Amino acid sequence: MQWTLAARAEKMNPSVIREILKVTEKPGIISFAGGLPSPKTFPISAFADACAKVLREDGQAALQYAASEGYGPLREMVAASLPWQVDPAQVLITTGSQQGLDLLAKILIDKGSPILVETPTYLGALQAFTPMEPQVISVASDDDGIDVMDLAMKATLRQAQGERKTARFLYVLPNFQNPTGRTMSEARRAALSAKTAELGLPIIEDNPYGDLWFDAPPPLPLSARNPDGCLYLGSFSKVLAPGLRLGFLVAPKALYPKLLQAKQAADLHSPGFNQRMIAEVMKDGFLDRHVPTIRALYKSQRDAMLAALKREMPEGVSWNTPDGGMFLWARLPAGMRAVELLPKAVEKNVAFVPGAAFYADNADPRTLRLSFVTASVDQINTGVAALAAAIRESQPAAGVRIAETAGAK
Amino acid sequence: MQWTLAARAEKMNPSVIREILKVTEKPGIISFAGGLPSPKTFPISAFADACAKVLREDGQAALQYAASEGYGPLREMVAASLPWQVDPAQVLITTGSQQGLDLLAKILIDKGSPILVETPTYLGALQAFTPMEPQVISVASDDDGIDVMDLAMKATLRQAQGERKTARFLYVLPNFQNPTGRTMSEARRAALSAKTAELGLPIIEDNPYGDLWFDAPPPLPLSARNPDGCLYLGSFSKVLAPGLRLGFLVAPKALYPKLLQAKQAADLHSPGFNQRMIAEVMKDGFLDRHVPTIRALYKSQRDAMLAALKREMPEGVSWNTPDGGMFLWARLPAGMRAVELLPKAVEKNVAFVPGAAFYADNADPRTLRLSFVTASVDQINTGVAALAAAIRESQPAAGVRIAETAGAK
Repeated sequence: MQWTLAARAEKMNPSVIREILKVTEKPGIISFAGGLPSPKTFPISAFADACAKVLREDGQAALQYAASEGYGPLREMVAASLPWQVDPAQVLITTGSQQGLDLLAKILIDKGSPILVETPTYLGALQAFTPMEPQVISVASDDDGIDVMDLAMKATLRQAQGERKTARFLYVLPNFQNPTGRTMSEARRAALSAKTAELGLPIIEDNPYGDLWFDAPPPLPLSARNPDGCLYLGSFSKVLAPGLRLGFLVAPKALYPKLLQAKQAADLHSPGFNQRMIAEVMKDGFLDRHVPTIRALYKSQRDAMLAALKREMPEGVSWNTPDGGMFLWARLPAGMRAVELLPKAVEKNVAFVPGAAFYADNADPRTLRLSFVTASVDQINTGVAALAAAIRESQPAAGVRIAETAGAK
Repeated sequence: MQWTLAARAEKMNPSVIREILKVTEKPGIISFAGGLPSPKTFPISAFADACAKVLREDGQAALQYAASEGYGPLREMVAASLPWQVDPAQVLITTGSQQGLDLLAKILIDKGSPILVETPTYLGALQAFTPMEPQVISVASDDDGIDVMDLAMKATLRQAQGERKTARFLYVLPNFQNPTGRTMSEARRAALSAKTAELGLPIIEDNPYGDLWFDAPPPLPLSARNPDGCLYLGSFSKVLAPGLRLGFLVAPKALYPKLLQAKQAADLHSPGFNQRMIAEVMKDGFLDRHVPTIRALYKSQRDAMLAALKREMPEGVSWNTPDGGMFLWARLPAGMRAVELLPKAVEKNVAFVPGAAFYADNADPRTLRLSFVTASVDQINTGVAALAAAIRESQPAAGVRIAETAGAK
């Protein structure tokens, strides 16, 4: 049989992380690799009560086909929870926020469309965008987020080459970013918001981690500053549980109908039963009581990892201090490559994701992503010590390092 | 802000059915329009038991991120349920079988790729394929299914124009088709299977209704005859409940990795909680006891509709006798158009879907789709009488009809 693949299929690749996770599926391994919320935070008994109630009181409707927009009461709760004026009619419930990325890629990306992303950026977004064959352009970024000067240069440069080459959007994850854990500062948000408004450049704002702050909430979302210029993505995966696969997007009213049509064609609607479960759990302010427990747990785990890194790591290894979320970003000494370190770490029963996986181009091979939420504090202590040992054993001797530096062009 | 839509977005349209359903959302209306399973068939107490058990015994895993392929035990159950040799590794659990259509469109359709469909065909498939911008070619079809001679002509004709114009696949729904309710005969399946093998033409076989037979099971699937040449789609929506949004596909091993990558990019995985619920309900042969009750209910409703049509319809209206599934296909007398009949029927509190919605081209304006599963037997009797009255009132007078015929070019 002559199965012929579409050109876009050739560009699709297995997730690097997925492949890495396979390597690290070794019994007893301590994994800092996965982006898995701590299962201790899943409110299982609240879900059990909600399931029973939904099936008892509204079973037939919960199990029937439903509207593609999502369950009305849940859309209202989402709209009411956001810190700017959102009409529930702008809310589309999605099958995880990953689906939001897939839908917007379908309606906003033509083959060759330039799109702008952070450096580094969320790998799942690159995977969702790739099938629509965009030209992905990395914008320089630092600890405060997107470099607004570089953004202006790259968006404008492209515009000078003709209308088709205007960047379709900038994709950003301003809060406790995956993979770096960094947060875009208030000043940077203000500057970015002003610059994108000036350029007419739409923003896709992805905010799965925003509620997981440790000491203070992050600055106001970009969408709150310019609602018509932003498409906002949110998720229930990190504040309730990922296994129900529910997220949402908030779209400018002009874009909503096309996103809805894409949604309908993609899976008709997200599971109505799950939407009712989540609405049932969330009513009466459940998240106001529940999310602080997640914050406290993740903060203690971040602190444990920071302390272990400080205690164990050899000179030359650096890392940041995330203000929330699930990830920390580290960097190996000069001359080392995270990808080569990984098998040696796995030998010592500890795993991470080499940062290179998260760059659209010009990857920094020394970086690595460490999740501090899946492993326990004991495991963090043992795992960081093992990782430090692997680094020490892999470090080129001082003489070799000098030779390398001298030979560098 | 300069939101620019992708070219494919311009081709996406709201579902005609969805728009029709809005018109018919009038209190007290009897709807033969929707494709909704009877909620009486949803095994609510079995689901309630399954939810409680899954959360109690396996809650953390059920609520965590999971493998994109789907839940292992469910994949095994699917493989074991099919009447040909299927390796569970070929089974991909999807977010409804609608998602299977979206995924295969992404990996198999380039812009302009010819694809072949039945006349008429499932509207949701057209909606899933359209964003990838295929050239959709309708193959003539009769009560026994696809016209194999016409298929050979259309597939071959395209091949003569160069390699890029070879049809990528034929999409068929052989059992109790949506919208017509027809079933492809054994002879036609054998001929189609031989011809597609000869042409090297892959088949997408969609089988959401196959288990809902009334007197005898349908003939063996096309996939069983040529597993490497067919991609098979199935669903739990019609035998358990659509609101959990679970379906599956069975792919030739060569195609599976690309479908899996597309799945991962689309929504990471289908809800693991729902997959466990369904696996829990299905174990110990639940479907062997449950599905016969759906068959009996739907058969009695089909019989009620057939009897009502025979009793009520004026001369010149014709309809078929489906051997299973949810739909019946009717045709109005010459000179009438279902689309014009609809508002008059809605005035009389009865709704249907004009058949024209289901044609890729050259629609037959006289056809209509009637679902016999959502309305009760009493409603079927009342609704068919109302529909017959609307038809009688809309029928052109005999004299007008003659004048029209004489004036036709």
